[in-house]
Amino acid sequence: MPYVAPVDDIMHALKTAAGLEALIADGIIATDMDTVSAVISEAGKFGAEVLDPLNWSGDRQGSKLVDGVVHTPAGWKEAYGQFAAAGWGSLPCSEEHGGQGLPQMVSMAASEIWNSANMGFGLCPLLTQGAIDAVEAHGSAFLKHTFLPKMVSGEWTGTMNLTEPHAGSDLGHLRAKAEKQSDGTYKITGTKIFITYGDHEMTENIVHLVLARLPDAPPGTRGISLFLVPKYMVGTDGVRGARNDVICAGLEHKLGIHASPTCVMKFGEKGGANGYLIGKENRGLNVMFIMMNAARLAVGVQGVAIAERATQRALEYARERKQGRTASSKGHEMGPIVEHADVRRNLMTMKAMTQAARAICLVTARETDVSRLAKDPAVRAAAANKVALLTPIAKAFSTDIGCEVASIGVQIHGGMGFVEETGAAQYYRDARILPIYEGTNGIQAIDLVSRKLPLDGGKVVENYIGELWKTCEEVRASNRPEFGRMAERLSDTVIALSEATRYLMQTMQTNPDAAMAGATPYLRLFGLASGGVYLARGALAATRDGSGGSQYVALARFFAENLATAAPGLKETVVGGADSTLGMALSA
Amino acid sequence: MPYVAPVDDIMHALKTAAGLEALIADGIIATDMDTVSAVISEAGKFGAEVLDPLNWSGDRQGSKLVDGVVHTPAGWKEAYGQFAAAGWGSLPCSEEHGGQGLPQMVSMAASEIWNSANMGFGLCPLLTQGAIDAVEAHGSAFLKHTFLPKMVSGEWTGTMNLTEPHAGSDLGHLRAKAEKQSDGTYKITGTKIFITYGDHEMTENIVHLVLARLPDAPPGTRGISLFLVPKYMVGTDGVRGARNDVICAGLEHKLGIHASPTCVMKFGEKGGANGYLIGKENRGLNVMFIMMNAARLAVGVQGVAIAERATQRALEYARERKQGRTASSKGHEMGPIVEHADVRRNLMTMKAMTQAARAICLVTARETDVSRLAKDPAVRAAAANKVALLTPIAKAFSTDIGCEVASIGVQIHGGMGFVEETGAAQYYRDARILPIYEGTNGIQAIDLVSRKLPLDGGKVVENYIGELWKTCEEVRASNRPEFGRMAERLSDTVIALSEATRYLMQTMQTNPDAAMAGATPYLRLFGLASGGVYLARGALAATRDGSGGSQYVALARFFAENLATAAPGLKETVVGGADSTLGMALSA
Repeated sequence: MPYVAPVDDIMHALKTAAGLEALIADGIIATDMDTVSAVISEAGKFGAEVLDPLNWSGDRQGSKLVDGVVHTPAGWKEAYGQFAAAGWGSLPCSEEHGGQGLPQMVSMAASEIWNSANMGFGLCPLLTQGAIDAVEAHGSAFLKHTFLPKMVSGEWTGTMNLTEPHAGSDLGHLRAKAEKQSDGTYKITGTKIFITYGDHEMTENIVHLVLARLPDAPPGTRGISLFLVPKYMVGTDGVRGARNDVICAGLEHKLGIHASPTCVMKFGEKGGANGYLIGKENRGLNVMFIMMNAARLAVGVQGVAIAERATQRALEYARERKQGRTASSKGHEMGPIVEHADVRRNLMTMKAMTQAARAICLVTARETDVSRLAKDPAVRAAAANKVALLTPIAKAFSTDIGCEVASIGVQIHGGMGFVEETGAAQYYRDARILPIYEGTNGIQAIDLVSRKLPLDGGKVVENYIGELWKTCEEVRASNRPEFGRMAERLSDTVIALSEATRYLMQTMQTNPDAAMAGATPYLRLFGLASGGVYLARGALAATRDGSGGSQYVALARFFAENLATAAPGLKETVVGGADSTLGMALSA
Repeated sequence: MPYVAPVDDIMHALKTAAGLEALIADGIIATDMDTVSAVISEAGKFGAEVLDPLNWSGDRQGSKLVDGVVHTPAGWKEAYGQFAAAGWGSLPCSEEHGGQGLPQMVSMAASEIWNSANMGFGLCPLLTQGAIDAVEAHGSAFLKHTFLPKMVSGEWTGTMNLTEPHAGSDLGHLRAKAEKQSDGTYKITGTKIFITYGDHEMTENIVHLVLARLPDAPPGTRGISLFLVPKYMVGTDGVRGARNDVICAGLEHKLGIHASPTCVMKFGEKGGANGYLIGKENRGLNVMFIMMNAARLAVGVQGVAIAERATQRALEYARERKQGRTASSKGHEMGPIVEHADVRRNLMTMKAMTQAARAICLVTARETDVSRLAKDPAVRAAAANKVALLTPIAKAFSTDIGCEVASIGVQIHGGMGFVEETGAAQYYRDARILPIYEGTNGIQAIDLVSRKLPLDGGKVVENYIGELWKTCEEVRASNRPEFGRMAERLSDTVIALSEATRYLMQTMQTNPDAAMAGATPYLRLFGLASGGVYLARGALAATRDGSGGSQYVALARFFAENLATAAPGLKETVVGGADSTLGMALSA
């Protein structure tokens, strides 16, 4: 069944949870709602018409390495060409370098669409965007002049080269080397793994951003520098020159995202690849973190995307597949399984989790925009702190539910869900990378507890929980019968989050390991509280403006009464589970 | 890393949760602990030495259909021959037909081992056992004489042919036909799908059990009969005769269990396959349910099996893989990830969930044995009711956690987990069929609420919860510091189960759809309560007999303080979530 972009759901989340209209009214974002809606609708068409039809065939064919050349699946190069020509790769890029200067909120909404339609494809622009961000923020005038315009236009793609076989999450131990040349450039040598779109023939050049270590660099993460290493050298006239000393030495055989080539990259097999320093020597990780934070949100959006796609397919199947008697059955006839209560629970879970994660990601995008565009430096700083706080939730909660929703999608199909041709299994396979890459979800949880809760002495999270609580009170005050027990359940959830937060802030001081033991259930609790409140804001808005939107009330109520109910138990696990988590001997 | 059968964990569950020693002492089971231990150890060796080495290669090669013949992967035929020759296929079969007459508890323990080592292989004896059970219970003297000995010896395998394209869960609508012949046999025609090991060349014959409908049969499930249809006809002398009119017309291309051929079977393409009635005309479903109930427990055991295998691999990896600093790191050295608190939470969750599900399955097997072997008919009847109650929990809870644990296993491997060669991804793929086949887990939950709770006017579940509560009181009374808050958490869990049960019993009378809406969270709650209590019994025993076993105390405490904490929230969902589950318009 073909993909249909959920334009209404995206617009609803942008308006209600992320408050886009207010940002436009305040002049912080220079666009209007009609433009946003038009862009998202057009993106939806492109996703449905160009990317979605290649998703399944791309999975079956996969990318292949033949005689040192990576071949993407049939149709990929043409689709990429159309994508770049239509300007989809440049939505959020600065107008100075040929971009469209649209806000991050719109860019992330479009990114959801590419990744729903075709996650194996969507990864390529996702990584390119990260490389653009880094060059834009820290590249020299030469690098900006020479590389940015063609990256923004989509003529060239970009990659991020971090991981080495022995250094995955722990970048401090990476070994790739960079030696300074007399002309100010560097010779790069080393092997990188898990490089997404590390090589392909879709564009005439590829811009690699590579972490490496100078000979005299201090050990650990303070001795890492970032370099730009093009696949082909480029003259000051912008003309493509000789091939650089970098090759793809192998492709991984993966569980999913088969179309996306995951490359082993070798730099300097013939003496050293030519590279240019980005930012300062030994400060590469700072630049990389800028890219990684944006990429973490983008990966969270991929979680939303795969959940949306799995939900659409499951709902369609449940409406068509007939098994068993239901209220609408006549005589011995079977009714559609969508009418069975247990199938409804599954579908409601899929829809509610997806919309909640979407709201969390779009709120994070909103705060990114405010942190860049607001006039008041204090407002910008507060928004930047909120981005820092929410990024691990956006990444980990959304990708966890991406996997869960994709798994429910398989289940709704019954035996057909286990048959690859049905398509549900591909989402289940593709989704599984999301909790792993761009920092595993465990690392996100640790980041949340150890670095984000202490921000501004704990005031950032305290203020945020205060905002959530305000919505709980609005729900209670509205006193609408169709809200059911939403106020009670959401209040319990936010109270649980508040108590768990207080416990972790204290425990981080006295027993950091015990705090870390609670990080993952705490992040889940945080996601349930945020997601539940954002859906409730959508429900409040839907009833306030009288425009209907009863489905948003129903989703918010379902989330509060069926999913957020897990919150108090998660708090118990956080505050009472550490001793038994840490006590048992597990080492060999 | 090679599989090592968890003999200690299995024996511990058999002794403490399933009370095997008491059954032996009471003379209900005619064996001794040394024999049981020896059988399980030997099974462990066979699994590790013969089946485990073929698991990965079997997945890569898969079974193939070439010119109408199904080819299993390299090594399969030889391994199956060794399996049969060693008598592993006949553990629980009656001695009358050449079996070894061992209790179901031992058979299920061995079945865990085959499926941990190689689930694609383990399915073949699993299905054969179901066919043996049906023929043993309801076959004519001719069928028993002609087919049983070779099925028990493993010379021939068996299949279950239920599903048709339009009739998966709803067997009442199946269309396969049977016409009675003048000699008392039947001609069978029709197409069946999803037939596990429906064809292969490992044995010289295959015995298909096939559901079909007589021309004058009443509509629905009361018009279904069961037939035995051999691949090759067999003379009264037991000699294999002509090929029967049944072929494999295709193999499914599946997400996992690639080695296990999932066949489209065509019966009667040349006029009708010869079949023999099993049991009575139009009463086939009754016989099939005997097989299916046993198979449901066996599938639950597959959930335990895949969880165990995923846990072993993840633990081994976590001990070897070094990333980040830990307590044992020196200077800038990285420590093994098993020492990180968040990884420990993952590993503890895997271990605790696996041992809890194992206990639930082995208790269900225990009650099966008592229902067959106890002298007192009242004891037998009570045990049969307990089997009925626990079978949906054993099947659904164990297979849900099988998927969850396999997914955590991928996560612990980081990026390597997404690379197929690592092996963790295979478990994630293989596990996904388990919540689907032998009745989806949604159907198990509905069965639990609609058919099992009302057993004996609700007394069966009431008594069962009473037993769980008794353990909570023992834990409280023991007052051991190393139990932490186990008593409190388990009591909360059993109280939640009790309240949810009372609500569902009432609601089934007044609003069945609302009760059904809570079935899935209720089943999860039931599994947490049962699993937590069984682990607690293990912990109590480990402290009582002074034999050490501190790991069982640690697991029980972890389960209570970290996983059973979800119970009160699940109860809230069951009792308060139905309206919002059923309220939203989802139909097209």
